[in-house]
Amino acid sequence: MIDQRLLPQRFRIIDLDDHLEVAECIRNMTVRGAPSIGAAAAYGMALAAVNKEDLGEAAKTLRSTRPTAYDLFYAIDHMLRSLELGDDPVEAADMYADQIIERCRLIGKYGAALIDKEARIMTHCNAGALATVDVGTALAPIRTAWAEGRHIYVYVSETRPRLQGMKLTAWELYNEGIPHAIIPDGASAHFMREGVDMVIVGADRITANGDFANKIGTFDKAILANAFGIPFYVCAPLSTFDFSLTSGEQIVIEDRAEEEVTMVGRTRLAPKGSAALNPSFDMTPAKYVTGFITEAGVLLPSEIDKVRKFRLEEAGRL
Amino acid sequence: MIDQRLLPQRFRIIDLDDHLEVAECIRNMTVRGAPSIGAAAAYGMALAAVNKEDLGEAAKTLRSTRPTAYDLFYAIDHMLRSLELGDDPVEAADMYADQIIERCRLIGKYGAALIDKEARIMTHCNAGALATVDVGTALAPIRTAWAEGRHIYVYVSETRPRLQGMKLTAWELYNEGIPHAIIPDGASAHFMREGVDMVIVGADRITANGDFANKIGTFDKAILANAFGIPFYVCAPLSTFDFSLTSGEQIVIEDRAEEEVTMVGRTRLAPKGSAALNPSFDMTPAKYVTGFITEAGVLLPSEIDKVRKFRLEEAGRL
Repeated sequence: MIDQRLLPQRFRIIDLDDHLEVAECIRNMTVRGAPSIGAAAAYGMALAAVNKEDLGEAAKTLRSTRPTAYDLFYAIDHMLRSLELGDDPVEAADMYADQIIERCRLIGKYGAALIDKEARIMTHCNAGALATVDVGTALAPIRTAWAEGRHIYVYVSETRPRLQGMKLTAWELYNEGIPHAIIPDGASAHFMREGVDMVIVGADRITANGDFANKIGTFDKAILANAFGIPFYVCAPLSTFDFSLTSGEQIVIEDRAEEEVTMVGRTRLAPKGSAALNPSFDMTPAKYVTGFITEAGVLLPSEIDKVRKFRLEEAGRL
Repeated sequence: MIDQRLLPQRFRIIDLDDHLEVAECIRNMTVRGAPSIGAAAAYGMALAAVNKEDLGEAAKTLRSTRPTAYDLFYAIDHMLRSLELGDDPVEAADMYADQIIERCRLIGKYGAALIDKEARIMTHCNAGALATVDVGTALAPIRTAWAEGRHIYVYVSETRPRLQGMKLTAWELYNEGIPHAIIPDGASAHFMREGVDMVIVGADRITANGDFANKIGTFDKAILANAFGIPFYVCAPLSTFDFSLTSGEQIVIEDRAEEEVTMVGRTRLAPKGSAALNPSFDMTPAKYVTGFITEAGVLLPSEIDKVRKFRLEEAGRL
């Protein structure tokens, strides 16, 4: 996998030999982004199977790495089912990763249809290729619209504390030649007033009522977009919907180390005696969502019950 | 003056010999915060007078340093009038600085009366002693409420790109022993939902209709506070009101170098080819303001015409 912590300064691919190394890479955010975490966990399970480890134990270890993204749990369950059926472990993980790519391609297709010819789009964090094996969720419609020749412009909010917007999304857009500018998270209202046509973000977990968790700062943008009457879209594969939770209050929000806020590299920026709070995600209520862009089309928050049906159909096809 | 760029790691006081050095220190943010910039400019004019420079030229140089904060222009006009009347230059600047301190003390008194016994208060940027010679504007009510024994808790939003919240406000609160935590700017909505009782910020310029400019990110917090029904107060001395502007659209917003966003120290964090946008301030419409806390009391946005009367009374007393 790419060590995402080193981007954009260094592009380094690392090899992992067992599920424990995979678990550590998920925990320390060498790999991040809900669908990529899912794919990493799938390969972690494949490694556990190849190495003849206890699969239940491996699943438990991988599940304990990060609590918020649902894809992690979805991928592990998928692998446990496949391995039980006697599927080849690496083929099963490959299939899972390939499915994500195909889903993102469809998200790009459905999402691009919503993007105007000269749209100014704001996004947050990184829901690009790095977060999703390839193409991206929130970046998929942007890539597709650009490939189709639309003159879009992207406001990349930097996404403190880990700056995935500045470091990863800007890097992906730069590599594709898509016009963009990095902005501080707190400049969102300023630029929305100047003229933003839509906000597109990813999601880490969507509950049965359409509430969703995503990178801290997403909820702020949803409220701001609502105040300005700007459409607010959430891109996510069906694997992000967690019907075991009825509403967003039930989502476990991961608190990460305060040093992510108070330090940059090895330099402490905050006063020695001051504490910081670092919730890694926030929860945005369904009422702020204009639509969920999925591989099955664009769904209103009121329509997401259809996802259960799509999932059953998919399970029937596989 | 204190070199605020080195805080909280180093506390260093520097001496300046002429108004050109003062102008450079305002421009490069060795000193920042609207009232402190005003005081620095007053001493800059005093130095120009002592050094027998052309006062009109000195005023022009100092005015050109930063466009948004009104205190800068107010202080220079005050010094030009005083020097024309034959006042001692250093005494005139001392009087200007002393007035700011007294005004902030009164802002503290009036503002503290609005703070509940166990209030959770969110602030942005630094409107503390560093920004205002002493005590602060937004931090004055917090200091006073704490001194009066109230069990307050302060959410310090870090304030990208220059992190004046994390570096300066947290440092001031830590030195006073006031309980606080630093949060990423994008965690504002998350913590407002968890429970914030009031938002208190400073201002760099307030126009005749009650619109105001303040550090980028203030407008975001105003909209969020409004969405949650949280009172939103703006602390500013009367010198911040600019009746020559009828509304906020007329305020010149300073754009600063993009490296403030893309670099930390000498390390570039953004991809090489990506641009950043760095508006240093945003403009918040009057409708989001619960009240302006001034040295003449708490004014509703609809009442700020009274400021003209206070100013005339004050001019009469001097």
